[in-house]
Amino acid sequence: MSRPLILVTNDDGYSSKGIEILNNVASNFGDTIIVAPNSEKSGKAHGITLYDPIGLKKIDNQNQLIYSVDGTPVDCVKIAINSLLDKKPKLILSGINHGLNVGRSILYSGTVSAASESIMIGIPSIAFSLQKSEEMDFTNVDIILEKLIKNALDEDFPNDVVWNVNIPKTVNEKINGIKLTKQGKSNFNEIYHKRKDPRNNTYFWVDGAIESIEEDLDVDEVAIRNGYVSITPLSFELTSQKYLENNQSKGFFDFEK
Amino acid sequence: MSRPLILVTNDDGYSSKGIEILNNVASNFGDTIIVAPNSEKSGKAHGITLYDPIGLKKIDNQNQLIYSVDGTPVDCVKIAINSLLDKKPKLILSGINHGLNVGRSILYSGTVSAASESIMIGIPSIAFSLQKSEEMDFTNVDIILEKLIKNALDEDFPNDVVWNVNIPKTVNEKINGIKLTKQGKSNFNEIYHKRKDPRNNTYFWVDGAIESIEEDLDVDEVAIRNGYVSITPLSFELTSQKYLENNQSKGFFDFEK
Repeated sequence: MSRPLILVTNDDGYSSKGIEILNNVASNFGDTIIVAPNSEKSGKAHGITLYDPIGLKKIDNQNQLIYSVDGTPVDCVKIAINSLLDKKPKLILSGINHGLNVGRSILYSGTVSAASESIMIGIPSIAFSLQKSEEMDFTNVDIILEKLIKNALDEDFPNDVVWNVNIPKTVNEKINGIKLTKQGKSNFNEIYHKRKDPRNNTYFWVDGAIESIEEDLDVDEVAIRNGYVSITPLSFELTSQKYLENNQSKGFFDFEK
Repeated sequence: MSRPLILVTNDDGYSSKGIEILNNVASNFGDTIIVAPNSEKSGKAHGITLYDPIGLKKIDNQNQLIYSVDGTPVDCVKIAINSLLDKKPKLILSGINHGLNVGRSILYSGTVSAASESIMIGIPSIAFSLQKSEEMDFTNVDIILEKLIKNALDEDFPNDVVWNVNIPKTVNEKINGIKLTKQGKSNFNEIYHKRKDPRNNTYFWVDGAIESIEEDLDVDEVAIRNGYVSITPLSFELTSQKYLENNQSKGFFDFEK
Protein backbone atom coordinates (compact mmCIF):
# COMPACT_ATOMS: atom_id res chain seq x y z
CA MET A 1 0.00 0.00 0.00
CA SER A 2 1.32 3.45 -0.87
CA ARG A 3 1.94 5.86 1.94
CA PRO A 4 -0.49 8.76 2.25
CA LEU A 5 0.67 12.26 1.29
CA ILE A 6 0.62 14.67 4.25
CA LEU A 7 1.06 18.44 3.86
CA VAL A 8 2.60 20.18 6.88
CA THR A 9 2.41 23.92 7.47
CA ASN A 10 2.35 26.45 10.32
CA ASP A 11 2.44 30.16 11.07
CA ASP A 12 5.74 30.37 12.95
CA GLY A 13 7.84 29.71 9.85
CA TYR A 14 9.33 26.61 8.20
CA SER A 15 12.37 26.54 10.48
CA SER A 16 10.53 26.59 13.82
CA LYS A 17 10.93 23.84 16.39
CA GLY A 18 7.18 23.12 16.42
CA ILE A 19 6.90 22.27 12.72
CA GLU A 20 10.01 20.09 12.92
CA ILE A 21 8.44 17.94 15.64
CA LEU A 22 5.08 17.80 13.88
CA ASN A 23 6.77 16.75 10.64
CA ASN A 24 8.87 14.09 12.39
CA VAL A 25 5.78 12.42 13.82
CA ALA A 26 3.81 12.76 10.57
CA SER A 27 6.68 11.07 8.69
CA ASN A 28 5.94 7.88 10.61
CA PHE A 29 2.57 7.71 8.89
CA GLY A 30 3.11 9.07 5.39
CA ASP A 31 5.19 11.03 2.90
CA THR A 32 5.35 14.58 4.13
CA ILE A 33 6.01 17.87 2.42
CA ILE A 34 6.50 21.10 4.34
CA VAL A 35 5.12 24.27 2.75
CA ALA A 36 5.33 27.01 5.34
CA PRO A 37 5.97 30.75 5.72
CA ASN A 38 9.53 32.04 5.47
CA SER A 39 9.14 33.81 8.82
CA GLU A 40 6.88 34.38 11.83
CA LYS A 41 3.32 35.09 10.60
CA SER A 42 1.37 34.96 13.85
CA GLY A 43 -1.84 36.97 13.89
CA LYS A 44 -2.24 36.78 10.11
CA ALA A 45 -5.55 34.93 10.59
CA HIS A 46 -7.17 33.89 7.31
CA GLY A 47 -5.32 36.60 5.40
CA ILE A 48 -4.22 36.08 1.80
CA THR A 49 -1.76 38.05 -0.27
CA LEU A 50 -3.65 39.76 -3.09
CA TYR A 51 -1.55 42.73 -4.13
CA ASP A 52 2.02 41.56 -3.71
CA PRO A 53 3.97 38.83 -5.44
CA ILE A 54 4.38 35.72 -3.27
CA GLY A 55 7.95 34.44 -3.26
CA LEU A 56 8.71 30.71 -3.15
CA LYS A 57 12.01 29.03 -2.26
CA LYS A 58 12.93 25.36 -2.11
CA ILE A 59 14.99 24.81 1.01
CA ASP A 60 18.18 22.83 0.69
CA ASN A 61 17.59 19.73 2.82
CA GLN A 62 18.59 16.18 1.97
CA ASN A 63 16.03 14.40 4.10
CA GLN A 64 12.89 16.45 3.69
CA LEU A 65 11.08 18.37 0.92
CA ILE A 66 10.59 21.91 2.26
CA TYR A 67 9.20 24.99 0.51
CA SER A 68 9.39 28.42 2.10
CA VAL A 69 6.69 30.89 1.09
CA ASP A 70 6.86 34.66 1.50
CA GLY A 71 3.19 34.82 2.43
CA THR A 72 0.54 33.87 4.98
CA PRO A 73 -0.28 30.33 6.20
CA VAL A 74 -3.38 30.33 3.97
CA ASP A 75 -1.21 31.34 0.98
CA CYS A 76 0.95 28.29 1.79
CA VAL A 77 -1.99 25.86 1.64
CA LYS A 78 -3.34 27.42 -1.56
CA ILE A 79 0.01 27.42 -3.37
CA ALA A 80 0.77 23.87 -2.26
CA ILE A 81 -2.56 22.57 -3.56
CA ASN A 82 -2.65 24.67 -6.73
CA SER A 83 0.98 24.57 -7.84
CA LEU A 84 3.30 22.29 -5.88
CA LEU A 85 1.59 18.95 -5.29
CA ASP A 86 0.87 16.34 -7.96
CA LYS A 87 -1.99 14.85 -5.96
CA LYS A 88 -4.35 15.94 -3.24
CA PRO A 89 -2.92 15.27 0.23
CA LYS A 90 -4.80 12.90 2.49
CA LEU A 91 -4.30 15.18 5.49
CA ILE A 92 -3.10 18.72 6.21
CA LEU A 93 -1.40 19.39 9.55
CA SER A 94 -0.75 22.87 10.92
CA GLY A 95 1.56 23.74 13.80
CA ILE A 96 2.81 23.04 16.34
CA ASN A 97 2.12 26.65 17.24
CA HIS A 98 4.31 28.12 19.96
CA GLY A 99 1.42 29.28 22.19
CA LEU A 100 -2.25 28.38 22.69
CA ASN A 101 -5.04 29.07 20.21
CA VAL A 102 -8.15 29.05 22.38
CA GLY A 103 -11.27 31.14 22.96
CA ARG A 104 -12.08 34.05 20.71
CA SER A 105 -8.46 34.59 19.76
CA ILE A 106 -8.80 31.56 17.47
CA LEU A 107 -10.03 34.09 14.91
CA TYR A 108 -6.58 35.74 14.77
CA SER A 109 -4.69 32.49 14.41
CA GLY A 110 -2.76 31.68 11.27
CA THR A 111 -2.27 28.11 12.53
CA VAL A 112 -6.02 27.50 12.74
CA SER A 113 -6.68 29.36 9.48
CA ALA A 114 -4.35 27.07 7.51
CA ALA A 115 -6.52 24.22 8.82
CA SER A 116 -9.83 25.93 8.03
CA GLU A 117 -8.58 26.63 4.50
CA SER A 118 -7.92 22.89 4.21
CA ILE A 119 -11.44 21.83 5.09
CA MET A 120 -12.83 24.42 2.67
CA ILE A 121 -11.17 22.38 -0.07
CA GLY A 122 -12.40 19.16 1.50
CA ILE A 123 -9.15 17.90 3.05
CA PRO A 124 -9.18 16.78 6.72
CA SER A 125 -7.01 18.95 8.91
CA ILE A 126 -5.72 19.38 12.45
CA ALA A 127 -4.27 22.52 14.03
CA PHE A 128 -1.82 21.91 16.88
CA SER A 129 -0.74 24.42 19.52
CA LEU A 130 1.42 24.01 22.61
CA GLN A 131 0.99 26.30 25.60
CA LYS A 132 3.75 28.90 25.86
CA SER A 133 6.46 28.55 28.44
CA GLU A 134 9.71 30.41 28.82
CA GLU A 135 11.60 27.67 27.02
CA MET A 136 9.14 25.82 24.79
CA ASP A 137 9.49 22.25 26.04
CA PHE A 138 8.22 19.68 23.53
CA THR A 139 8.95 16.60 25.67
CA ASN A 140 6.16 13.99 25.26
CA VAL A 141 4.31 16.09 22.67
CA ASP A 142 5.14 13.42 20.09
CA ILE A 143 3.13 10.83 22.04
CA ILE A 144 -0.01 12.99 21.79
CA LEU A 145 0.61 13.77 18.13
CA GLU A 146 1.10 10.12 17.21
CA LYS A 147 -2.23 9.16 18.68
CA LEU A 148 -4.12 12.03 17.01
CA ILE A 149 -2.51 11.81 13.57
CA LYS A 150 -3.04 8.04 13.42
CA ASN A 151 -6.72 8.62 14.17
CA ALA A 152 -6.97 11.38 11.54
CA LEU A 153 -5.85 8.99 8.79
CA ASP A 154 -8.89 6.79 9.39
CA GLU A 155 -11.46 6.90 6.59
CA ASP A 156 -14.18 8.27 8.88
CA PHE A 157 -12.19 11.29 10.07
CA PRO A 158 -14.28 14.39 9.27
CA ASN A 159 -13.33 16.78 6.46
CA ASP A 160 -15.87 19.44 7.40
CA VAL A 161 -14.60 20.36 10.86
CA VAL A 162 -11.12 21.35 12.01
CA TRP A 163 -9.73 19.66 15.07
CA ASN A 164 -8.26 22.53 17.03
CA VAL A 165 -5.81 20.76 19.35
CA ASN A 166 -4.22 22.60 22.27
CA ILE A 167 -1.65 20.92 24.49
CA PRO A 168 -0.89 22.10 28.04
CA LYS A 169 2.73 22.90 28.90
CA THR A 170 2.49 20.32 31.69
CA VAL A 171 2.75 17.65 28.98
CA ASN A 172 6.49 17.48 29.67
CA GLU A 173 5.64 15.93 33.07
CA LYS A 174 2.09 14.65 32.85
CA ILE A 175 -1.33 15.27 31.35
CA ASN A 176 -4.68 14.26 32.78
CA GLY A 177 -6.19 13.06 29.50
CA ILE A 178 -7.78 14.36 26.30
CA LYS A 179 -11.00 16.38 26.36
CA LEU A 180 -13.43 17.17 23.57
CA THR A 181 -14.19 20.85 24.24
CA LYS A 182 -16.07 23.96 23.15
CA GLN A 183 -14.47 27.21 22.01
CA GLY A 184 -14.58 29.54 25.03
CA LYS A 185 -15.44 33.22 25.07
CA SER A 186 -12.15 34.29 26.61
CA ASN A 187 -10.53 37.02 24.61
CA PHE A 188 -7.12 38.53 24.29
CA ASN A 189 -7.19 41.64 26.43
CA GLU A 190 -5.12 44.17 24.52
CA ILE A 191 -3.14 47.06 25.84
CA TYR A 192 -2.03 49.57 23.22
CA HIS A 193 1.15 51.38 24.17
CA LYS A 194 1.07 54.82 22.56
CA ARG A 195 4.45 56.30 21.54
CA LYS A 196 5.94 59.07 19.41
CA ASP A 197 8.62 58.54 16.80
CA PRO A 198 11.52 61.07 16.48
CA ARG A 199 9.45 63.03 13.94
CA ASN A 200 6.54 63.28 16.42
CA ASN A 201 4.31 60.77 14.60
CA THR A 202 2.04 58.64 16.79
CA TYR A 203 2.32 54.87 16.77
CA PHE A 204 1.17 51.95 18.89
CA TRP A 205 2.61 48.65 20.06
CA VAL A 206 0.08 46.03 21.03
CA ASP A 207 0.53 43.98 24.19
CA GLY A 208 -1.76 42.06 26.49
CA ALA A 209 -2.81 38.67 27.81
CA ILE A 210 -5.68 36.19 27.60
CA GLU A 211 -8.50 37.21 29.93
CA SER A 212 -9.93 34.08 31.52
CA ILE A 213 -13.67 34.31 32.04
CA GLU A 214 -14.59 30.64 31.71
CA GLU A 215 -14.91 27.95 34.38
CA ASP A 216 -16.49 24.86 32.82
CA LEU A 217 -14.10 22.00 32.22
CA ASP A 218 -15.54 21.37 28.75
CA VAL A 219 -14.25 24.77 27.58
CA ASP A 220 -10.93 24.79 25.68
CA GLU A 221 -8.96 27.12 27.90
CA VAL A 222 -10.26 25.59 31.17
CA ALA A 223 -9.40 22.06 30.04
CA ILE A 224 -5.84 23.22 29.35
CA ARG A 225 -5.60 24.94 32.73
CA ASN A 226 -6.56 21.62 34.31
CA GLY A 227 -3.90 19.65 32.51
CA TYR A 228 -5.94 18.17 29.65
CA VAL A 229 -5.20 18.14 25.94
CA SER A 230 -8.12 20.09 24.43
CA ILE A 231 -9.69 19.14 21.08
CA THR A 232 -12.31 21.59 19.82
CA PRO A 233 -14.15 20.71 16.60
CA LEU A 234 -14.51 23.96 14.63
CA SER A 235 -16.93 24.62 11.81
CA PHE A 236 -16.61 27.56 9.43
CA GLU A 237 -20.17 27.61 8.18
CA LEU A 238 -20.89 31.00 9.72
CA THR A 239 -24.63 31.48 9.12
CA SER A 240 -26.51 31.93 12.41
CA GLN A 241 -29.33 29.38 12.00
CA LYS A 242 -30.90 30.67 15.21
CA TYR A 243 -31.17 34.19 13.83
CA LEU A 244 -32.59 32.92 10.55
CA GLU A 245 -35.29 30.90 12.33
CA ASN A 246 -36.28 33.78 14.59
CA ASN A 247 -36.35 36.44 11.90
CA GLN A 248 -37.27 34.76 8.62
CA SER A 249 -40.89 35.81 8.79
CA LYS A 250 -40.27 39.43 9.80
CA GLY A 251 -41.84 41.90 7.40
CA PHE A 252 -38.63 43.92 7.34
CA PHE A 253 -37.04 41.59 4.85
CA ASP A 254 -39.93 41.87 2.38
CA PHE A 255 -38.95 45.48 1.63
CA GLU A 256 -39.56 46.50 -1.96
CA LYS A 257 -37.95 49.66 -3.23
CA MET B 1 -31.58 63.25 23.36
CA SER B 2 -27.90 62.92 22.53
CA ARG B 3 -26.99 61.49 19.17
CA PRO B 4 -25.50 57.97 19.19
CA LEU B 5 -21.78 57.53 18.49
CA ILE B 6 -21.12 55.49 15.33
CA LEU B 7 -17.67 54.15 14.42
CA VAL B 8 -17.07 53.75 10.68
CA THR B 9 -14.30 51.62 9.20
CA ASN B 10 -13.50 49.54 6.10
CA ASP B 11 -10.72 47.62 4.37
CA ASP B 12 -10.31 49.74 1.25
CA GLY B 13 -8.78 52.68 3.12
CA TYR B 14 -10.13 55.85 4.73
CA SER B 15 -10.20 57.79 1.45
CA SER B 16 -12.26 55.30 -0.56
CA LYS B 17 -15.58 56.22 -2.16
CA GLY B 18 -17.42 53.46 -0.30
CA ILE B 19 -16.56 54.67 3.19
CA GLU B 20 -17.43 58.24 2.25
CA ILE B 21 -20.95 57.22 1.24
CA LEU B 22 -21.39 54.99 4.29
CA ASN B 23 -20.24 57.80 6.57
CA ASN B 24 -22.54 60.33 4.89
CA VAL B 25 -25.58 58.17 5.52
CA ALA B 26 -24.49 57.28 9.08
CA SER B 27 -24.10 61.02 9.85
CA ASN B 28 -27.86 61.41 9.46
CA PHE B 29 -28.34 59.16 12.48
CA GLY B 30 -25.47 59.94 14.82
CA ASP B 31 -22.03 61.43 15.44
CA THR B 32 -19.58 59.49 13.33
CA ILE B 33 -15.86 58.93 13.58
CA ILE B 34 -13.88 57.25 10.82
CA VAL B 35 -10.98 55.01 11.90
CA ALA B 36 -9.80 53.15 8.83
CA PRO B 37 -6.66 51.76 7.18
CA ASN B 38 -4.30 54.17 5.43
CA SER B 39 -4.46 52.07 2.25
CA GLU B 40 -6.09 49.08 0.56
CA LYS B 41 -6.13 46.13 3.02
CA SER B 42 -8.36 43.66 1.16
CA GLY B 43 -7.76 40.01 2.01
CA LYS B 44 -6.36 40.82 5.45
CA ALA B 45 -9.19 38.84 7.06
CA HIS B 46 -9.10 38.91 10.86
CA GLY B 47 -5.39 39.68 10.87
CA ILE B 48 -3.84 41.84 13.59
CA THR B 49 -0.46 43.53 13.68
CA LEU B 50 1.59 41.91 16.44
CA TYR B 51 5.23 42.51 15.55
CA ASP B 52 5.24 45.93 13.91
CA PRO B 53 4.40 49.35 15.28
CA ILE B 54 0.99 50.57 14.13
CA GLY B 55 1.09 54.16 12.88
CA LEU B 56 -1.80 56.56 13.49
CA LYS B 57 -2.50 59.86 11.72
CA LYS B 58 -5.31 62.35 12.22
CA ILE B 59 -6.49 63.44 8.79
CA ASP B 60 -6.95 67.15 8.18
CA ASN B 61 -10.67 67.53 7.52
CA GLN B 62 -12.89 70.32 8.79
CA ASN B 63 -16.18 68.46 8.63
CA GLN B 64 -15.34 64.98 9.81
CA LEU B 65 -13.11 63.32 12.42
CA ILE B 66 -10.92 60.83 10.52
CA TYR B 67 -8.04 58.70 11.77
CA SER B 68 -5.85 56.75 9.37
CA VAL B 69 -4.22 53.59 10.74
CA ASP B 70 -1.21 51.80 9.26
CA GLY B 71 -2.74 48.42 10.08
CA THR B 72 -5.54 45.98 9.37
CA PRO B 73 -9.29 46.65 9.69
CA VAL B 74 -9.31 44.69 12.98
CA ASP B 75 -6.42 46.85 14.26
CA CYS B 76 -8.61 49.89 13.46
CA VAL B 77 -11.52 48.65 15.58
CA LYS B 78 -9.23 47.68 18.46
CA ILE B 79 -7.31 50.97 18.50
CA ALA B 80 -10.52 53.00 18.21
CA ILE B 81 -12.11 51.23 21.18
CA ASN B 82 -8.95 51.03 23.30
CA SER B 83 -7.34 54.39 22.65
CA LEU B 84 -9.36 56.88 20.60
CA LEU B 85 -12.98 56.90 21.79
CA ASP B 86 -14.16 58.33 25.12
CA LYS B 87 -17.24 56.11 25.12
CA LYS B 88 -18.35 52.85 23.55
CA PRO B 89 -19.98 53.40 20.17
CA LYS B 90 -23.61 52.36 19.76
CA LEU B 91 -22.88 50.82 16.36
CA ILE B 92 -19.86 49.92 14.21
CA LEU B 93 -20.25 50.06 10.43
CA SER B 94 -17.76 48.53 8.00
CA GLY B 95 -17.58 49.23 4.26
CA ILE B 96 -18.89 49.89 1.74
CA ASN B 97 -16.51 47.31 0.28
CA HIS B 98 -15.80 47.65 -3.43
CA GLY B 99 -16.79 44.09 -4.34
CA LEU B 100 -19.00 41.32 -2.86
CA ASN B 101 -18.22 39.37 0.30
CA VAL B 102 -20.24 36.19 -0.13
CA GLY B 103 -19.80 32.43 0.18
CA ARG B 104 -16.64 31.00 1.64
CA SER B 105 -14.56 34.01 0.67
CA ILE B 106 -16.16 35.84 3.61
CA LEU B 107 -13.31 34.31 5.63
CA TYR B 108 -10.74 36.42 3.73
CA SER B 109 -12.65 39.65 4.10
CA GLY B 110 -11.28 42.53 6.12
CA THR B 111 -14.66 44.29 5.83
CA VAL B 112 -16.49 41.42 7.51
CA SER B 113 -13.69 40.89 10.06
CA ALA B 114 -13.95 44.47 11.33
CA ALA B 115 -17.61 43.69 11.99
CA SER B 116 -16.92 40.33 13.66
CA GLU B 117 -14.34 42.02 15.91
CA SER B 118 -17.11 44.46 16.90
CA ILE B 119 -19.56 41.80 18.03
CA MET B 120 -16.77 40.08 19.97
CA ILE B 121 -16.67 43.20 22.13
CA GLY B 122 -20.47 43.29 22.24
CA ILE B 123 -21.14 46.17 19.83
CA PRO B 124 -23.72 45.66 17.05
CA SER B 125 -22.19 45.80 13.61
CA ILE B 126 -23.00 45.67 9.91
CA ALA B 127 -20.61 44.91 7.03
CA PHE B 128 -21.61 46.45 3.68
CA SER B 129 -20.35 45.38 0.26
CA LEU B 130 -21.35 46.50 -3.23
CA GLN B 131 -20.94 44.20 -6.21
CA LYS B 132 -17.98 45.16 -8.39
CA SER B 133 -18.56 46.86 -11.71
CA GLU B 134 -16.10 48.56 -14.03
CA GLU B 135 -16.94 51.96 -12.56
CA MET B 136 -18.28 51.42 -9.05
CA ASP B 137 -21.71 53.10 -9.26
CA PHE B 138 -23.12 53.97 -5.82
CA THR B 139 -26.41 55.47 -7.12
CA ASN B 140 -29.29 54.54 -4.77
CA VAL B 141 -27.00 52.71 -2.36
CA ASP B 142 -27.79 55.42 0.21
CA ILE B 143 -31.48 54.45 0.18
CA ILE B 144 -30.62 50.88 1.22
CA LEU B 145 -28.10 52.04 3.82
CA GLU B 146 -30.56 54.46 5.41
CA LYS B 147 -33.13 51.73 5.93
CA LEU B 148 -30.63 49.25 7.38
CA ILE B 149 -28.72 51.67 9.64
CA LYS B 150 -31.96 53.10 11.07
CA ASN B 151 -33.04 49.54 11.92
CA ALA B 152 -29.65 48.73 13.47
CA LEU B 153 -30.01 51.59 15.98
CA ASP B 154 -33.13 49.96 17.47
CA GLU B 155 -32.63 48.56 20.96
CA ASP B 156 -33.43 45.01 19.85
CA PHE B 157 -30.79 44.86 17.11
CA PRO B 158 -28.55 41.87 17.88
CA ASN B 159 -24.98 42.29 19.14
CA ASP B 160 -24.03 38.63 18.74
CA VAL B 161 -24.41 38.26 14.97
CA VAL B 162 -22.95 40.36 12.16
CA TRP B 163 -25.28 41.47 9.43
CA ASN B 164 -23.28 40.76 6.29
CA VAL B 165 -24.99 42.99 3.70
CA ASN B 166 -24.24 42.60 0.01
CA ILE B 167 -25.79 44.92 -2.56
CA PRO B 168 -26.14 43.99 -6.25
CA LYS B 169 -24.68 46.36 -8.83
CA THR B 170 -28.16 46.64 -10.36
CA VAL B 171 -29.06 48.90 -7.41
CA ASN B 172 -28.28 51.89 -9.64
CA GLU B 173 -31.38 51.00 -11.71
CA LYS B 174 -33.53 48.72 -9.56
CA ILE B 175 -33.45 46.00 -6.94
CA ASN B 176 -36.06 43.30 -6.35
CA GLY B 177 -36.06 43.56 -2.55
CA ILE B 178 -34.08 42.49 0.50
CA LYS B 179 -33.51 38.84 1.34
CA LEU B 180 -32.39 37.20 4.57
CA THR B 181 -29.89 34.62 3.31
CA LYS B 182 -27.42 31.87 4.20
CA GLN B 183 -23.70 31.93 3.54
CA GLY B 184 -23.14 29.89 0.38
CA LYS B 185 -20.39 27.39 -0.31
CA SER B 186 -19.11 29.17 -3.40
CA ASN B 187 -15.40 29.76 -3.19
CA PHE B 188 -12.87 31.97 -4.86
CA ASN B 189 -11.28 29.80 -7.52
CA GLU B 190 -7.64 30.83 -7.55
CA ILE B 191 -5.17 30.71 -10.36
CA TYR B 192 -1.54 31.15 -9.35
CA HIS B 193 0.60 32.65 -12.10
CA LYS B 194 4.14 31.40 -11.64
CA ARG B 195 6.94 33.76 -12.71
CA LYS B 196 10.69 34.26 -12.35
CA ASP B 197 12.33 37.47 -11.22
CA PRO B 198 15.52 38.73 -12.92
CA ARG B 199 17.60 36.78 -10.36
CA ASN B 200 15.74 33.56 -11.24
CA ASN B 201 13.72 33.43 -8.01
CA THR B 202 10.22 31.96 -8.26
CA TYR B 203 7.19 34.02 -7.32
CA PHE B 204 3.43 33.88 -7.78
CA TRP B 205 0.64 36.34 -8.49
CA VAL B 206 -2.80 35.23 -7.44
CA ASP B 207 -5.78 35.71 -9.75
CA GLY B 208 -9.17 34.08 -10.11
CA ALA B 209 -12.91 34.49 -9.83
CA ILE B 210 -15.83 33.36 -7.67
CA GLU B 211 -16.97 29.89 -8.67
CA SER B 212 -20.76 29.76 -8.50
CA ILE B 213 -22.03 26.40 -7.33
CA GLU B 214 -25.24 27.49 -5.61
CA GLU B 215 -28.77 27.76 -6.97
CA ASP B 216 -31.16 28.39 -4.06
CA LEU B 217 -32.49 31.91 -3.83
CA ASP B 218 -31.92 31.99 -0.07
CA VAL B 219 -28.13 31.74 -0.58
CA ASP B 220 -26.18 35.02 -0.48
CA GLU B 221 -24.61 34.91 -3.92
CA VAL B 222 -27.77 33.65 -5.67
CA ALA B 223 -29.91 36.38 -4.12
CA ILE B 224 -27.45 38.97 -5.45
CA ARG B 225 -27.48 37.40 -8.91
CA ASN B 226 -31.24 37.77 -8.89
CA GLY B 227 -31.20 41.43 -7.99
CA TYR B 228 -31.82 41.25 -4.24
CA VAL B 229 -29.93 42.91 -1.42
CA SER B 230 -28.60 39.97 0.63
CA ILE B 231 -28.40 40.07 4.44
CA THR B 232 -26.65 37.05 6.01
CA PRO B 233 -26.55 36.86 9.81
CA LEU B 234 -23.07 35.56 10.73
CA SER B 235 -22.06 34.02 14.03
CA PHE B 236 -18.43 33.54 15.08
CA GLU B 237 -19.01 30.91 17.73
CA LEU B 238 -17.13 28.26 15.78
CA THR B 239 -17.68 25.08 17.83
CA SER B 240 -19.41 22.39 15.77
CA GLN B 241 -22.27 21.39 18.09
CA LYS B 242 -23.15 18.58 15.72
CA TYR B 243 -19.71 17.03 16.02
CA LEU B 244 -19.76 17.39 19.80
CA GLU B 245 -23.12 15.62 20.08
CA ASN B 246 -22.07 12.78 17.79
CA ASN B 247 -18.66 12.18 19.38
CA GLN B 248 -18.90 13.18 23.02
CA SER B 249 -19.31 9.62 24.24
CA LYS B 250 -16.56 8.10 22.08
CA GLY B 251 -13.93 6.31 24.15
CA PHE B 252 -11.17 7.99 22.19
CA PHE B 253 -11.46 11.13 24.22
CA ASP B 254 -11.10 9.30 27.53
CA PHE B 255 -7.45 8.59 26.73
CA GLU B 256 -5.19 8.57 29.76
CA LYS B 257 -1.46 8.75 29.23
